[in-house]
Amino acid sequence: MSDDRQLALQYAHEHYKQFLDSLCDLLKIPSVSTSPEHTRDIQAAANWLAEKLRSLGMARVQVLPTKGHPVVYGEWMNSGSAPTILVYGHYDVQPAEPIELWLTDPFEPDVRGENLYARGASDMKGQIIASLAAIESILRCSQMPVNLKFMLEGEEEIGSPNLRAFMHDHRELLACNLALNPDTGMIALDVPTLTYALRGLAYFEVRVYGPDHDLHSGLFGGVVHNPAQVLCDLISGMHDSQGRITLPGYYDRVREMEPEERTELAYLPMDQDYFKNQAGVKNLWGEAGFTPVERVGARPTLEVNGLLSGFTGQGSKTVLPAWAMAKISMRLVPDQDPQEVYEQLSAYLKSNAPDTVRWEISQFSGGPACMIQRNSHGNHAMAEALEAIWGRRPLFKREGGSVPVVGEIQEILGSDSVLTGFGLPDDNVHGPNEKLHLPTWYKGIDALIHFFYNY
Amino acid sequence: MSDDRQLALQYAHEHYKQFLDSLCDLLKIPSVSTSPEHTRDIQAAANWLAEKLRSLGMARVQVLPTKGHPVVYGEWMNSGSAPTILVYGHYDVQPAEPIELWLTDPFEPDVRGENLYARGASDMKGQIIASLAAIESILRCSQMPVNLKFMLEGEEEIGSPNLRAFMHDHRELLACNLALNPDTGMIALDVPTLTYALRGLAYFEVRVYGPDHDLHSGLFGGVVHNPAQVLCDLISGMHDSQGRITLPGYYDRVREMEPEERTELAYLPMDQDYFKNQAGVKNLWGEAGFTPVERVGARPTLEVNGLLSGFTGQGSKTVLPAWAMAKISMRLVPDQDPQEVYEQLSAYLKSNAPDTVRWEISQFSGGPACMIQRNSHGNHAMAEALEAIWGRRPLFKREGGSVPVVGEIQEILGSDSVLTGFGLPDDNVHGPNEKLHLPTWYKGIDALIHFFYNY
Repeated sequence: MSDDRQLALQYAHEHYKQFLDSLCDLLKIPSVSTSPEHTRDIQAAANWLAEKLRSLGMARVQVLPTKGHPVVYGEWMNSGSAPTILVYGHYDVQPAEPIELWLTDPFEPDVRGENLYARGASDMKGQIIASLAAIESILRCSQMPVNLKFMLEGEEEIGSPNLRAFMHDHRELLACNLALNPDTGMIALDVPTLTYALRGLAYFEVRVYGPDHDLHSGLFGGVVHNPAQVLCDLISGMHDSQGRITLPGYYDRVREMEPEERTELAYLPMDQDYFKNQAGVKNLWGEAGFTPVERVGARPTLEVNGLLSGFTGQGSKTVLPAWAMAKISMRLVPDQDPQEVYEQLSAYLKSNAPDTVRWEISQFSGGPACMIQRNSHGNHAMAEALEAIWGRRPLFKREGGSVPVVGEIQEILGSDSVLTGFGLPDDNVHGPNEKLHLPTWYKGIDALIHFFYNY
Repeated sequence: MSDDRQLALQYAHEHYKQFLDSLCDLLKIPSVSTSPEHTRDIQAAANWLAEKLRSLGMARVQVLPTKGHPVVYGEWMNSGSAPTILVYGHYDVQPAEPIELWLTDPFEPDVRGENLYARGASDMKGQIIASLAAIESILRCSQMPVNLKFMLEGEEEIGSPNLRAFMHDHRELLACNLALNPDTGMIALDVPTLTYALRGLAYFEVRVYGPDHDLHSGLFGGVVHNPAQVLCDLISGMHDSQGRITLPGYYDRVREMEPEERTELAYLPMDQDYFKNQAGVKNLWGEAGFTPVERVGARPTLEVNGLLSGFTGQGSKTVLPAWAMAKISMRLVPDQDPQEVYEQLSAYLKSNAPDTVRWEISQFSGGPACMIQRNSHGNHAMAEALEAIWGRRPLFKREGGSVPVVGEIQEILGSDSVLTGFGLPDDNVHGPNEKLHLPTWYKGIDALIHFFYNY
């Protein structure tokens, strides 16, 4: 091992505590991107990161505006003809609701045992700080072996609605040989993981309107079609008895897996029990004819993310509600198109909604699925780095989640990404009591140091 | 017309303003019975009414405890051998939520045009004050032609869970020849109405539990059965394509209408357009083979009163929720039994819920349906009173709502009720912007004066 690399690792080991403090500072900023009331917090998180980049000696650090939340940019271009790595991250987080299910304040980071609990600890402020910690460790001890650029956005959790335009507008500034995206996680503790495919996302709110005001269910029950009941009918009809989605044309563009890929995916240590334990369920469910790991990575889904109608407080209220709402999202696989999915949902509602109600769909941001080169130079460098720390080759997986930026970087900047990360499946990302496993996070910092040297 | 009656009517006409002020005082007390936070307001409303009864000269006025909210009692037994009328009322109200849909504060009564807007204005503080106004008008001018007792409860909107026991315990105190229950309304403006049948109620909360915490819909969508989707499946299956309820045995004890009754009900001026206009819908819905007025009065129903699951805020959150909840209630007709309906719902869930989730049912108070004598002395007296004021005979109807106390008074006290009231179908009882039509309310006071003299 080179002296430089050894010194950087040494530095990291001596500064884990400081890195953790730095992460806690960032986690205290409730940079929730889904609701307008947090706009100032978003700005504060961006400023915090810009200041952090400056303190590391990055040049041209700017908080660049978009039509939505800003992107933090910075660069280290002092490494001559070495290749340039664009470090991608998002500093926004999901809402913490339902707050009452958190054991501690989601924005007051709390270390319990080996874990750090806070909204964003795993997804993905922890991953950003791990990258910065690796870079700091190298810079403080020796020469940076690569050039660096940073693109840290604030709208990932709302589907990055402005990032595509931002990348178009700043194509030259962002030019790079490779993007490092540490926003995907590990399959299990001690199983380092590289991701080569991501599902896309299409997110909708469907509202069904019945009577023009809430009615007394005794005086109108039996003659007025209950919009909550209609919504349930519509949602129920969106899957058939085989767990397949019934929206017209939904599977037309779904790319089927090759037999070799199915064989490979079967090696992943993610069997029925794995998913049952992670989710806390007795039995799984899903599309007939596919294994759990295929269903979660290589098959499209349709989920109800939320339901609301009528009286939902304690006790009883005999209301026939005026409207009912569902948040419905689809995870997409290549080559489905989010806009086509909107049209399929719309066509389904047109065909199936009764004339006793009216309905409307709001579309939120989404993006298509994407697949990346498995055998790129970047993936090789990361695979070796992960092996150096964990003592085993990483597994390659398809990811059920959605990271639209990966496809956009391919398309707009012409660069592949390396997709890894040090979150674990039980981190409760997007749920209450999100946590980060600190021993794994420290290993991740070390692995990233190796990666920068390997590349 | 007797001089006494004339004087009482004269007094009423001169005191409408004071009666309205008195009603507004009572409406300002947010005596919502469904949530514990209003316990003090409930007590305050009971005390207010007790004070009111004392000011009218009633004897033995007491706020009598029950296991829940108290019952206000008082009596006027100075009319010798005249018959005794038990005036029933409930001083509790439905929750005002969703507050944001009210144009003015639900507990700050507001007169706009001919209407008084406030929670409880129509259901039924307005009806209680109308009864008291009629009694005041008679007492201030002459002799009371009947003896009076009052039973004003505070738990009607939560299904009167303690009233049955209360009546058992106070059978002698409450003994009467007739009950006056002004908690049912008029079919339309200028159509005085007497009700002879009421639907019963069975109210449940159904919860479906999936994973043991909220999950990321990308990481688990496709392998974990979404409890919101399961709930929709279950609710959707509770009606067939003919609008009939599929719970096993649900119709077994439903008493079918005689052909004569169907003929009579057809006279009611409540056609398709009537219900469409009241509800603000373009098309009606319901059980095949029955007219709207039959479906709403003489047939049992099943309604979704509320739905809640997952993320329901603004924007998007890609959560696979841990649980989903529905408030579900049934309006019952003779001779359905609420406890049997609970078992039918339970049997339905047992048969239809998949083994990927678990579920539970909470049962709220309800009661069976009831029918009363159409040709009683009390109904005659009220029919003449209504005709004296409105210039037309009242229509007799079956009511879709539920007033369990009517059956309990029959059973425990052995007395029939007279069911009338001066609320209108567009009063938005239980909804936002509940109102009372003041010209109709004033007529109601006059009609009640006639009724006491007629009986």
